[in-house]
Amino acid sequence: MNVFEEWESEIRGYCRLYPTVFASASNARQVDEAGRSYVDFFAGAGVLNFGHNNPRMKKALIEFIEADGVAHSLDMYTVPKRAFVQKFADTVLRPRGMKYRMQFMGPTGTNAVEAALKLARRVTGRTTVVACSHGFHGMTLGSLACTANSYFRNAAGVPLEHVIRQPFGCDKPCEGCTMGCGPAAVDRLRAMFEDASSGLPKPAAFVVEPIQAEGGVHVASREWLHAVQTLAHDLGALLIFDDIQAGCGRTGTYFSFDGMELDPDIVCLAKGIGGFGTPLAMNLVKPEHDAHWSPGEHTGTFRGQGFSFVAGVEALKYFDDDELMSEVRRKGQRMREHLEGICADHGQRRFQVRGKGMMQAIDLGDGALAKDVAAKCFENGLLIGACGTGGRVLKLIPPLTIPDEDLTEGLELLSKSLRQVVGQAEEVPV
Amino acid sequence: MNVFEEWESEIRGYCRLYPTVFASASNARQVDEAGRSYVDFFAGAGVLNFGHNNPRMKKALIEFIEADGVAHSLDMYTVPKRAFVQKFADTVLRPRGMKYRMQFMGPTGTNAVEAALKLARRVTGRTTVVACSHGFHGMTLGSLACTANSYFRNAAGVPLEHVIRQPFGCDKPCEGCTMGCGPAAVDRLRAMFEDASSGLPKPAAFVVEPIQAEGGVHVASREWLHAVQTLAHDLGALLIFDDIQAGCGRTGTYFSFDGMELDPDIVCLAKGIGGFGTPLAMNLVKPEHDAHWSPGEHTGTFRGQGFSFVAGVEALKYFDDDELMSEVRRKGQRMREHLEGICADHGQRRFQVRGKGMMQAIDLGDGALAKDVAAKCFENGLLIGACGTGGRVLKLIPPLTIPDEDLTEGLELLSKSLRQVVGQAEEVPV
Amino acid sequence: MNVFEEWESEIRGYCRLYPTVFASASNARQVDEAGRSYVDFFAGAGVLNFGHNNPRMKKALIEFIEADGVAHSLDMYTVPKRAFVQKFADTVLRPRGMKYRMQFMGPTGTNAVEAALKLARRVTGRTTVVACSHGFHGMTLGSLACTANSYFRNAAGVPLEHVIRQPFGCDKPCEGCTMGCGPAAVDRLRAMFEDASSGLPKPAAFVVEPIQAEGGVHVASREWLHAVQTLAHDLGALLIFDDIQAGCGRTGTYFSFDGMELDPDIVCLAKGIGGFGTPLAMNLVKPEHDAHWSPGEHTGTFRGQGFSFVAGVEALKYFDDDELMSEVRRKGQRMREHLEGICADHGQRRFQVRGKGMMQAIDLGDGALAKDVAAKCFENGLLIGACGTGGRVLKLIPPLTIPDEDLTEGLELLSKSLRQVVGQAEEVPV
Amino acid sequence: MNVFEEWESEIRGYCRLYPTVFASASNARQVDEAGRSYVDFFAGAGVLNFGHNNPRMKKALIEFIEADGVAHSLDMYTVPKRAFVQKFADTVLRPRGMKYRMQFMGPTGTNAVEAALKLARRVTGRTTVVACSHGFHGMTLGSLACTANSYFRNAAGVPLEHVIRQPFGCDKPCEGCTMGCGPAAVDRLRAMFEDASSGLPKPAAFVVEPIQAEGGVHVASREWLHAVQTLAHDLGALLIFDDIQAGCGRTGTYFSFDGMELDPDIVCLAKGIGGFGTPLAMNLVKPEHDAHWSPGEHTGTFRGQGFSFVAGVEALKYFDDDELMSEVRRKGQRMREHLEGICADHGQRRFQVRGKGMMQAIDLGDGALAKDVAAKCFENGLLIGACGTGGRVLKLIPPLTIPDEDLTEGLELLSKSLRQVVGQAEEVPV
Repeated sequence: MNVFEEWESEIRGYCRLYPTVFASASNARQVDEAGRSYVDFFAGAGVLNFGHNNPRMKKALIEFIEADGVAHSLDMYTVPKRAFVQKFADTVLRPRGMKYRMQFMGPTGTNAVEAALKLARRVTGRTTVVACSHGFHGMTLGSLACTANSYFRNAAGVPLEHVIRQPFGCDKPCEGCTMGCGPAAVDRLRAMFEDASSGLPKPAAFVVEPIQAEGGVHVASREWLHAVQTLAHDLGALLIFDDIQAGCGRTGTYFSFDGMELDPDIVCLAKGIGGFGTPLAMNLVKPEHDAHWSPGEHTGTFRGQGFSFVAGVEALKYFDDDELMSEVRRKGQRMREHLEGICADHGQRRFQVRGKGMMQAIDLGDGALAKDVAAKCFENGLLIGACGTGGRVLKLIPPLTIPDEDLTEGLELLSKSLRQVVGQAEEVPV
Repeated sequence: MNVFEEWESEIRGYCRLYPTVFASASNARQVDEAGRSYVDFFAGAGVLNFGHNNPRMKKALIEFIEADGVAHSLDMYTVPKRAFVQKFADTVLRPRGMKYRMQFMGPTGTNAVEAALKLARRVTGRTTVVACSHGFHGMTLGSLACTANSYFRNAAGVPLEHVIRQPFGCDKPCEGCTMGCGPAAVDRLRAMFEDASSGLPKPAAFVVEPIQAEGGVHVASREWLHAVQTLAHDLGALLIFDDIQAGCGRTGTYFSFDGMELDPDIVCLAKGIGGFGTPLAMNLVKPEHDAHWSPGEHTGTFRGQGFSFVAGVEALKYFDDDELMSEVRRKGQRMREHLEGICADHGQRRFQVRGKGMMQAIDLGDGALAKDVAAKCFENGLLIGACGTGGRVLKLIPPLTIPDEDLTEGLELLSKSLRQVVGQAEEVPV
Repeated sequence: MNVFEEWESEIRGYCRLYPTVFASASNARQVDEAGRSYVDFFAGAGVLNFGHNNPRMKKALIEFIEADGVAHSLDMYTVPKRAFVQKFADTVLRPRGMKYRMQFMGPTGTNAVEAALKLARRVTGRTTVVACSHGFHGMTLGSLACTANSYFRNAAGVPLEHVIRQPFGCDKPCEGCTMGCGPAAVDRLRAMFEDASSGLPKPAAFVVEPIQAEGGVHVASREWLHAVQTLAHDLGALLIFDDIQAGCGRTGTYFSFDGMELDPDIVCLAKGIGGFGTPLAMNLVKPEHDAHWSPGEHTGTFRGQGFSFVAGVEALKYFDDDELMSEVRRKGQRMREHLEGICADHGQRRFQVRGKGMMQAIDLGDGALAKDVAAKCFENGLLIGACGTGGRVLKLIPPLTIPDEDLTEGLELLSKSLRQVVGQAEEVPV
Repeated sequence: MNVFEEWESEIRGYCRLYPTVFASASNARQVDEAGRSYVDFFAGAGVLNFGHNNPRMKKALIEFIEADGVAHSLDMYTVPKRAFVQKFADTVLRPRGMKYRMQFMGPTGTNAVEAALKLARRVTGRTTVVACSHGFHGMTLGSLACTANSYFRNAAGVPLEHVIRQPFGCDKPCEGCTMGCGPAAVDRLRAMFEDASSGLPKPAAFVVEPIQAEGGVHVASREWLHAVQTLAHDLGALLIFDDIQAGCGRTGTYFSFDGMELDPDIVCLAKGIGGFGTPLAMNLVKPEHDAHWSPGEHTGTFRGQGFSFVAGVEALKYFDDDELMSEVRRKGQRMREHLEGICADHGQRRFQVRGKGMMQAIDLGDGALAKDVAAKCFENGLLIGACGTGGRVLKLIPPLTIPDEDLTEGLELLSKSLRQVVGQAEEVPV
C-alpha cells in the first residue's frame, strides 16, 4: 500500500474503508493479495449487477479481443454496438412499447445527466430544473448542481445555480423527517409554478431518481412520481429519470419504475448497463425531443466502448426471461427481512429499513456509527458502503447473482459487526 | 445501418462521415463488415496511440480476464492499479524529477478537467479561470465553460460563466489571424490583472493545452507558455495543462511540453493513457495542492478501471527507451513534409500546415472544403477527421505505431482526395 | 400629451391608466390641467404618506432653499442631515430601544435592498438568500432576483440567481391559494436547511416584507414572522425586513411590524421617509453587522438629499405623539369596513379584503376586471392602482392625512365604479 | 459630529475626508457651521454643474412649491415633466438631429445603467456585455458587474457575471500602462468575436464612458470610440454611452462626445441633469429599440421628480446659447494649464494631467499621496476628491459657473497643498 500512499492523491476514499489490496474477484467475492476473501455487498457501487467476472461475459470478451473487435469507436457504427442497440431495443424497449432513441455520451453517469439537462433546456428554452433533496446525479458542474449533498457541492468552487429544490417523495416518511414529502408537496409546488408572481420560473425539467441510492435509499411512492410527472407535463417541462444506480435489474425489474405506468421523457442509465464493470452510459430519449439535437453537439471521446457493448449484450440476455428477476425479488425479500430483524433486535435505537429488490438499506441514524459498523464489517470479511446524510445509512447492493450462501454469510457478518459495535449481547436471528 | 437509424439518437456524428459498420481493427487499420480496409489517421480521436488491438495489450488483457482480475474497483486498492501507479511513477515522473500525486476520477477527459478546476478554485479561494480561444476541454458544464467552440457552448442551455478568455499563443501566427497571440498578449493581460480597477478578478487558474488539438492544431510557443506560467504564479493562480490529446507520446515525447522546462501545477491526462481504448483519466497534482482535497470530494463510479490499468502499463513500457518516440519524431517529420508539399502544390489556395510529432494538420481555411475532402478520403479508404473553427482543419493523428507503408498509403490517399475535390490536375509528390 | 407620445419611452405606465396631465396637488387631491380634481388613493405609490405639498414641509423647504441650505451632499456631514439623524434616533429608535446604525445609499428602495443584500452576504460569507413568493424588492439585478413577479423578472435578460423562494406567511389564507403558507411551511424549510443533503445551502439572509404591498397586499402573521426570524437566527442568517412601502406610519405604527416583538437585523426604508416625495432611502443596520462595512464600499451619488432630510424631519414630527397614528387606525378601519361591504354586496364573486391600517386592498381575483375598475375610477375622479398577480388586486393607500370627506368620496367612487363595471345594480353602502 | 458617529453607518466616506458639518452652499462655495468657506472643486461628485443653489433654479423651485406643483408623480404626466421633455427635445435633441426617446427610471445613475443593460439584452436576445477597464457604472448588481473597481466589486458577495472586459481607449497612453488601449485593441477583440471558436459569445452591448470620470479621468480617443461603435454595430450589439458624469455640459459641450459624429444607441444621463442636486436619471433610447419595452417593465418609485424637472429646465436654458459652454472651454483650459504647470514643477515625480473641458485631473501615481494632498487641500479650504486605481488621481470638477476668482483660489490652494505634502520649496506658478 506504500505505493498508493506515496503517489496517489489524498482524495482517494474507499481504500481508506477497505485498507487492503484486492487481487481478484468472482461473482460476489473479492479476494485480496493475502488471500482473504470478502463477501461483496457493494458491487462496485452498484455496477456489478451480474457479478465480478461473470463467466458468460468473460468468454464473450476474450473472443472479442482475440477477433480484433473494435474496442473504441466514438460514435462510428460497429458490429458490437449494433448488437447492443438491437438487443436493448428487443429486450427492453419493444416489450414495453417504448419508442425511445438511445443516446451514448461519455461513459459515466454524470455525462448522461449533463446530456439530459442540455436537451431539456434546449427543448424548452428554459434554464431552471427541479431536483430533489437527497438526490445524487454526479460531480461535473451541471449534474453537481442537481446533486444535493453539501459535501460534494462545497467542492464546486463556484455557485451551483439554475436548480430549484423539492423534497423527495418517499413511499413512507423517514424517522423524524419533517421536510414534507409526498403528493401534497407537489401540490404546493404546483401552486407556486402556476402563480406568475411566485418567483419560480417555469422549469425545463424535473430530475428524479425513482429510487435514491446514494442519497440514503429512499424509494419514491407511485403517487408522488405520478404527481411529479403530471406537474412536469402540465408545465411543459421534461421528466428526467436518473435510473443509473437503481436500473438494470437492481430492483427486480429492468427499470426501477417498471409497472408504475410512468412515462419519463428521458431515462439516464449507466453503472450496470455495461455488465462487466467497463464504463458505458446511455440516455433513452423520446424521438420528438431527440430531434432537437444537432449532430455532435454533446460528445465525449469514450462514447463507443466495444467491451461494454459486448458484455452489455450478455447482461441483457438475463432479461430474456424472468429467472434472474424473480431471484432478485426473492433475495431482496430475504435481505429486507434480515434487516427488519436487526431493527427489531435494536428496537430502542430506532433503526429504519428501506429499499426495493436487491437495494436494501438500514438507516442507523448516525454517520459515525455507520462508519464504525462498515469498518467492523470489513474486518469481519464483508464489503459494505454507507450513504445518506452524513453517511448514516448502510446500503446493501450485492451482485444480483450472489449465491444464497454468500448472501447469508454477508447478512450474518453484518449482524455480527453491528452487535460488536453497538455492544449489545442479544442474538440477531438470520 | 438501419438499426442505428431506427434506434440511435440524432446526435450521432462520426458515423455520418464514415457511413459503414466497422467489424474489426488492427494497428492502423479498420475493416468494415464488407471487408473493406481503411487506413486510420484518426485513431479514435487520439486515443489509440499504440494501435488498435495492440498485441502486447491483447495478451495482457486476456490473461487478466482469465485470472479474474478486478475489472472495476472505484478507488479501492488493486493489484493492477498498483502496477500502473508504480510504472507511471517510475517511467514518467521519476526521470523528470516530478513529484506529482496521481488523482483518478471519472474516466473521461472532461472529468479530469472538472476535477482540476475544482481543486484550483479550492486552493485559491477564487472562482474565475483563464482559458484560451480555440481551447477544447470537454462537454460537462464546468469544462464546457472553458471550451471555446460556440457550437458546443450553445448546447449548454445556461450561461457558461467564471471564465476569462485569452488568445492562444501560437508558435507562428495563423494565416490572417489578428487576435494578437504571443507573449505581448500575456503582457497586456498582466497589466489588466495587476490593476485593481481593470475589472478582471484574480484568477484561480490558467487552463492551457500546450498543443490545441480539437481547436485546430495550434502549437503554443515556448515563450508564450513561459509567459503564461510566470503570470499565473505571480498572480497566485494555478497553471493547468490539459494534455489529454497531445500527451502520452503523441508529439514525440511523453508530455507535449517536455523539454520546455515548464512546471504546471496540474496536468490532465486521458485518451491515450489507458492504451487500448478503454477509458481512463488522471490528473497529476502537486502535493501541496493535493493536500486541499478531502477524501471522496470528487468521485465517479468508473474511476478504477482494471483493463485500462493493465493495458496502460503495457503502454508505458513503450517509454522505457526512446525507440517509439524517435519513430514518432521521424514519422511526424515525414507527415509534415508531405503536408507542406501539398501546400506548395496548392499554393494559390494558402493552405497552412501546423503540428508537432505525429499530430500534424493542414488548415484548408474552409470548413465545407475540409468536409468534402474528409468524405472523399473515406471513399478512397482513409479515415481522417476535421477540427478547428468551422471544421476547416484536417488533423492527422494516426497510431504512433503505424507501419510506414500504411502511413505512405494514407498520405497518398489524402493527396489524391484533395486533388479530386479541389479539381487540380497537378501531381502531388509523396 | 403629444409631447409625451412623441418623446417619451414606450415603457411609461401609469400615464396610460391616468391619461391626463396633472398640474397641481394638495394633500389627497391631484388636479389636472383642465382643472379636474381627483381623489388620490395612490399617493405616489405610497410615498406621500403626509399628503401632497404638506404645508409644514412646504414652509420648511422654502426656508431651506432661501437660506442656501446644502441640497446635495453625498455622505458629507450637513446640518439638515444631522437634524434628520438626530430626529430619527430620538423619535423612532430610542423609544423602541433600537440600536441600529443608519445607512444612506442611493435614494431609492432598490438601492436599499441591494445594500442590505451585500451586507448580509459579507457578514455571513454566504451567497444565497431566501425571498418570498409575491415579494417585491426592486428592479436592479440584485433586488430583482428577490422580486417574485415574472413580468419584472423576464425583463432582466440574464438569469436571476442566488435566491431560494419560500411561500409568504399570510395571516389568513388567500382564496384558493394552495402554496402552503404559515409556520408549517417554515418548519419544512427548516428541515431542509438542517439536512446537509437537502441541496439547500445555508442562506445569508431571509428577505421579507412584513406586509407585501406590490405583491397583492398580503399581511404576514405574527407567528410566521417569528418562525422565520427564529429560523434565520438558528441558521446564522440575517433577517432583512423590507418595510419600504408599509413602513413610515402606513399601518398605524411607524414600522409595520411594531408591537410584534420582532428583532430584524436590517430594516430597509424609502418611499415615505423623505416626506415630500423627494427621494431618500435608508437602512437600519445592527452595529455588529455594520462594522463589516469599509468606508465607501457601497455608494451612490444622491445619498445625501437635503430636501428629503428637511421634509423628513417634518414627517417624523408626526410621530411625536399618537395623534396621526390613531387617525390612521380609525381611517384604516373605515376603509376596511367599506371594502368588506363591497365584498358582501358582490358575494357570489368571492372578492377578498386584505390589509392593515391605511393599506387596504380588495382582491378581485381577475386582473382584467381590476384594470377596468381602476380605469372607471379614474373616469369617475379617483386615482387607484392595481397590484398582485396579474394586477388583480386594487390597493387603497391614500395619504395618511386624507380628510374624512375625501376618504368618503373616494370610497364611494370605488363602489360606484365597481358597480358600473361589474354591472350590478345593488346599492353598496358607504 | 457626535450624532453621526453615534448613529450613522461605518460606510460613510466623504465625511472622513471633509470632517466638518456644512451649513450652506452657494455656487462654488460650501460653508461649514463654523463659518469657514471652502472652494468646491468637487461639486457633489459632478452633480452641481450649475453651482450650489443656482439663483434661477431657487426662484423656480420656490414658485413651484408655492403653487403646489406635483413634486412626485412616478410616470404620470405632469406639467413640469412636459416642460422638461419639451425643453430637452428642443435644446438638445432637435439641433443634433437626434430621434431618441427619453426613458425615466429610478433617479440614480445606476438605475439608468441597469435599464440600458436590460434593454440591450432584450433587443439582442444575448446576455453578455462588453465593459471597460476603469469603467464605473454604479453599485447595484447589474451595473456593478460593469464597474471595474475591485473595491466596489468585492462588496457584491456574489460573482459578477455576463461581462467581458476590454481595455479603455485613452487618447494618449497613461504613464506606464501596458494594457494595450487604442483601436488596435478593438481589432484584436473583433478578431475574437468574429471567430466562432474564440470562446467569446456575441455581446448584447458595449458599455462605454466616452470620458471615464471615477475610473481616473481617462478621455477616449475619437478613433477608438469609432472603432468600438463600428464593432458593436457589425456584431449586432448596442452601443451604450454612460455620460452620467461627463455629460450635461461638463466638457464644454452638452454631451461629452459631441462633435465626434458618433451614434450611440443608448445614452445614460443622471447627475447634472436635474440641475439643483435633486435626483433624476434618464436614458436616451433609439425608437426602434425602445419599441421592445412593454409598459412598466422597468420601474422605480421616484422616476417622476418635479423639483428635478423644474430645475432641469433652468439648467437646459444654459444651452440656449454658447455662453456657458465657451466659458467652460476657457476655464477648462485655465485648469489644464495650471495642472501642467504643477507637473512641470514636480518633474521628477512624473505626474500626468488628463481631462477635457472642466473635468481635469492630475494623476499623482500614488493613492496614499493623493489622499494626503486632498486632506491638506481641505485643511487649506479646498474640497477636492480622488479617483482612479487606488485613488491616485485628483479630479477637479468645480461647478461650471465658478467665478474666476474662486477658480484661481482653488488652483492656488491645490498647488500649495501639494507643495506642503510633497515638501518641495519651488514656486508653482498660477
